[in-house]
Amino acid sequence: ADPLVIGGHAFTSRFILGSGKYSLALIKAAVENAGAQMITVALRRANTGGRENILDYIPPGVTLLPNTSGARTAEEAVKIARFARELCSGNFVKIEVIRDSKYLLPDNSETIKATEILAKEGFIVMPYMFPDLNAARDLANAGAACIMPLASPIGSNRGLCARDFIRILLDEMDLPVIIDAGIGKPSQACEVMEMGAAAVMANTAIATAGDIPAMAEAFKNAIEAGRKAYLAGLGRVLEKTGSASSPLTGFLHEDKNGGMHE
Amino acid sequence: ADPLVIGGHAFTSRFILGSGKYSLALIKAAVENAGAQMITVALRRANTGGRENILDYIPPGVTLLPNTSGARTAEEAVKIARFARELCSGNFVKIEVIRDSKYLLPDNSETIKATEILAKEGFIVMPYMFPDLNAARDLANAGAACIMPLASPIGSNRGLCARDFIRILLDEMDLPVIIDAGIGKPSQACEVMEMGAAAVMANTAIATAGDIPAMAEAFKNAIEAGRKAYLAGLGRVLEKTGSASSPLTGFLHEDKNGGMHE
Amino acid sequence: ADPLVIGGHAFTSRFILGSGKYSLALIKAAVENAGAQMITVALRRANTGGRENILDYIPPGVTLLPNTSGARTAEEAVKIARFARELCSGNFVKIEVIRDSKYLLPDNSETIKATEILAKEGFIVMPYMFPDLNAARDLANAGAACIMPLASPIGSNRGLCARDFIRILLDEMDLPVIIDAGIGKPSQACEVMEMGAAAVMANTAIATAGDIPAMAEAFKNAIEAGRKAYLAGLGRVLEKTGSASSPLTGFLHEDKNGGMHE
Amino acid sequence: ADPLVIGGHAFTSRFILGSGKYSLALIKAAVENAGAQMITVALRRANTGGRENILDYIPPGVTLLPNTSGARTAEEAVKIARFARELCSGNFVKIEVIRDSKYLLPDNSETIKATEILAKEGFIVMPYMFPDLNAARDLANAGAACIMPLASPIGSNRGLCARDFIRILLDEMDLPVIIDAGIGKPSQACEVMEMGAAAVMANTAIATAGDIPAMAEAFKNAIEAGRKAYLAGLGRVLEKTGSASSPLTGFLHEDKNGGMHE
Repeated sequence: ADPLVIGGHAFTSRFILGSGKYSLALIKAAVENAGAQMITVALRRANTGGRENILDYIPPGVTLLPNTSGARTAEEAVKIARFARELCSGNFVKIEVIRDSKYLLPDNSETIKATEILAKEGFIVMPYMFPDLNAARDLANAGAACIMPLASPIGSNRGLCARDFIRILLDEMDLPVIIDAGIGKPSQACEVMEMGAAAVMANTAIATAGDIPAMAEAFKNAIEAGRKAYLAGLGRVLEKTGSASSPLTGFLHEDKNGGMHE
Repeated sequence: ADPLVIGGHAFTSRFILGSGKYSLALIKAAVENAGAQMITVALRRANTGGRENILDYIPPGVTLLPNTSGARTAEEAVKIARFARELCSGNFVKIEVIRDSKYLLPDNSETIKATEILAKEGFIVMPYMFPDLNAARDLANAGAACIMPLASPIGSNRGLCARDFIRILLDEMDLPVIIDAGIGKPSQACEVMEMGAAAVMANTAIATAGDIPAMAEAFKNAIEAGRKAYLAGLGRVLEKTGSASSPLTGFLHEDKNGGMHE
Repeated sequence: ADPLVIGGHAFTSRFILGSGKYSLALIKAAVENAGAQMITVALRRANTGGRENILDYIPPGVTLLPNTSGARTAEEAVKIARFARELCSGNFVKIEVIRDSKYLLPDNSETIKATEILAKEGFIVMPYMFPDLNAARDLANAGAACIMPLASPIGSNRGLCARDFIRILLDEMDLPVIIDAGIGKPSQACEVMEMGAAAVMANTAIATAGDIPAMAEAFKNAIEAGRKAYLAGLGRVLEKTGSASSPLTGFLHEDKNGGMHE
Repeated sequence: ADPLVIGGHAFTSRFILGSGKYSLALIKAAVENAGAQMITVALRRANTGGRENILDYIPPGVTLLPNTSGARTAEEAVKIARFARELCSGNFVKIEVIRDSKYLLPDNSETIKATEILAKEGFIVMPYMFPDLNAARDLANAGAACIMPLASPIGSNRGLCARDFIRILLDEMDLPVIIDAGIGKPSQACEVMEMGAAAVMANTAIATAGDIPAMAEAFKNAIEAGRKAYLAGLGRVLEKTGSASSPLTGFLHEDKNGGMHE
């Protein structure tokens, strides 16, 4: 009824789960409790030689979203993406090009280049980006299937650090805007959905929680709540005063006979 | 498994619905979609003579919480509470004493007095209050069954305007802390639940939404999400840097034979 | 030209310096660099027996503002105030009634009682308070010469934690509103002055700075800046878009002859 | 003693005044009250044919900073910069490349290209930019003399919309970071200076004030306050509790003889 469509594929879930940070044993529980239909996977996790294979933990029907984690240039991202397509046999790819190892901020310029090349090769390109409107437009022109701006630095759990610039992306872009990186609490996921985000991706927020499957479920509920609220239409905000919700005039007075009347 | 207990009564829902602002026809839908087990009612709404009666719209099993809306002093609140007990045949009462008609801020001093009198008379007193720790302690000493601090002015939908002072109440008070007034969006309800609130009361946020039953459901989901996250334990927040969630070192290089290796 | 008037006394400085936290040797420098004309003093500091006496460090012409620090009830505050009047030979007194030793939040209820008693005895009463409009009105009715709401817990340097409720006080109260406690940076002092505060009191922000006299001067500049901006009238804020400040249309094109034209 | 050095030129003022928005008659007053030593000028304003000429209103000793306002590509910016050098006979140029007419956000990618070309031609390039660390590093590599990230959209007076990302620039970049665009109040200018910004540029905040010369002076004071506070070292912030600034223990008790003792 309200599907998320990316590159022509429809999803009923608006939660994308990152797999980078937990033990494999917990991934299955998280996927199930979160109702995720798409899960990211770094190439090294997908293909771990003799070791446990993440693919064994992904329930059937879940779309794998290989990312280009580790790429520092467009060229490297392209190379990883091509290899991932062979390995995961799908066209989805999440572009991550990160030069900076302290804040792990995406390099918009290299990301745009990689997007252009890969979109032409038939990939469904989902680029991780710094929330800059001009770069978002360049990504759209380059053939991106959505944009994935960060809320705050990856893994920080700090939430929406540039709310106004995310709002500009939501207002101006026709592509789905998926908030990726930095969302640390269900309430933050809920808020970006209320603002009109198409989906939320989270990993660290769940991986660092005390109870991982429970937090996965909390994110699921919160994202659904935010989406419903967005569709229902939020009420107006009064900047200064209040507004009575119960009748304030005419409280009751006791009459001489002990009864109450207004 | 995780009941909300107020005055010895256990509830499974942590959402309290205000009834002041919608047409009666919508209340039933809202109660049902919100899963609320407690709903406030102003005396005039409860007893509207020949007109429609709100009580006809409340599903069975829902606890009525009459409020003292309209009271400007402790004395008036006490009078209304006593009358409400007769009318609604229950011991719950929400104390509202409001002198100020612009911001509708509760008068803590009169509220404490009313609480003391009514608690002694066997009421389960739920006082609406300004989020002041000293007043909260006085309310506890006066016999309140919980405290109901405002997030922002009633009906404003402005959210958590004094987050740090609400946090102090959550950290210091043993009584259930129910956030009442000003919560305007599901994400805000979710956040206060993550912080440890016992429950959330909302009215205007739902009444002013585009689709009232859908917004009621969004609040339900968000409150459940926030409670789950609180119980699961939120992850740590990094104040400055990021933290890699996928492996960043060792991206893949193509070897001479066209294969990928680290 | 723009004096701060409290209890009929006019001051040209809108900075009130707290003296509780530094070595006496630094107080003089701070007072001078801050241009303060009023400085608080706790009774024990004023009268230290054989030890150094703070009064020796206060430049002539500076008004002493004894506070009732240590009082836990109205009665104790009244007692300290009366004693302070004898010792400091002035009518100013800052009422502090604090029951809570963790957050040091003022007890509005006891503060109102002490204010009423002391105002009748001819004191110029400056009450430290929690920023609650109803309590502020009670303080005004009790004879306070100003109100001194906290920005955040004393000594926290956390800034304006309840901005919206401070704004309500500024909008509604006719008495001077002096922001006291929690202001941690010059920018925060500047902001409350822009909002219309009459003055700012600071202590810890300066006492915990790396260079105390320099920070005192920074506060002086910032408070003056905020006052000027308030009087000048702040410009409007655009909630969503931008607005060109330089001409954007008609950039220059080179013509065939190498000249520039629009 | 604490000069701002840009491209080998030292300034004692850390306030850069934009000239785009006021009547020429007010510019002189603003420059004088703001103590600005550098003022931006759009080419069309500098050279208005028979009409009034902004250059007549700039006091001697003030450095003109021509901007490339109106440029939509690197090529256009380069062209305007070259023409400006002839007209204003100086090497300073502020690069503005703006494709987007609603939010007026700078195009980092084109700005980097223009910076590289103009730096090689001996310009002192001051690029207006979106606050993205990767782009800032590219600008430094391209030869920028400083970086000028926006606080929020030009002309919005909305203040610091991406505080955390500005902080990253301040922490990571060796070049002077000058906050440009969106600063709407003196307190906001003060805050960015406390964070370590090298200077602040403002235009609309002053042009839209009720009293332009007074607001210019307020900005001057606030920027000086922020710089002093940065150099002095801000005190620590307590995240939860308070900390007594006056002695709280040992309030005074009256003894039998009416004297006070602890």
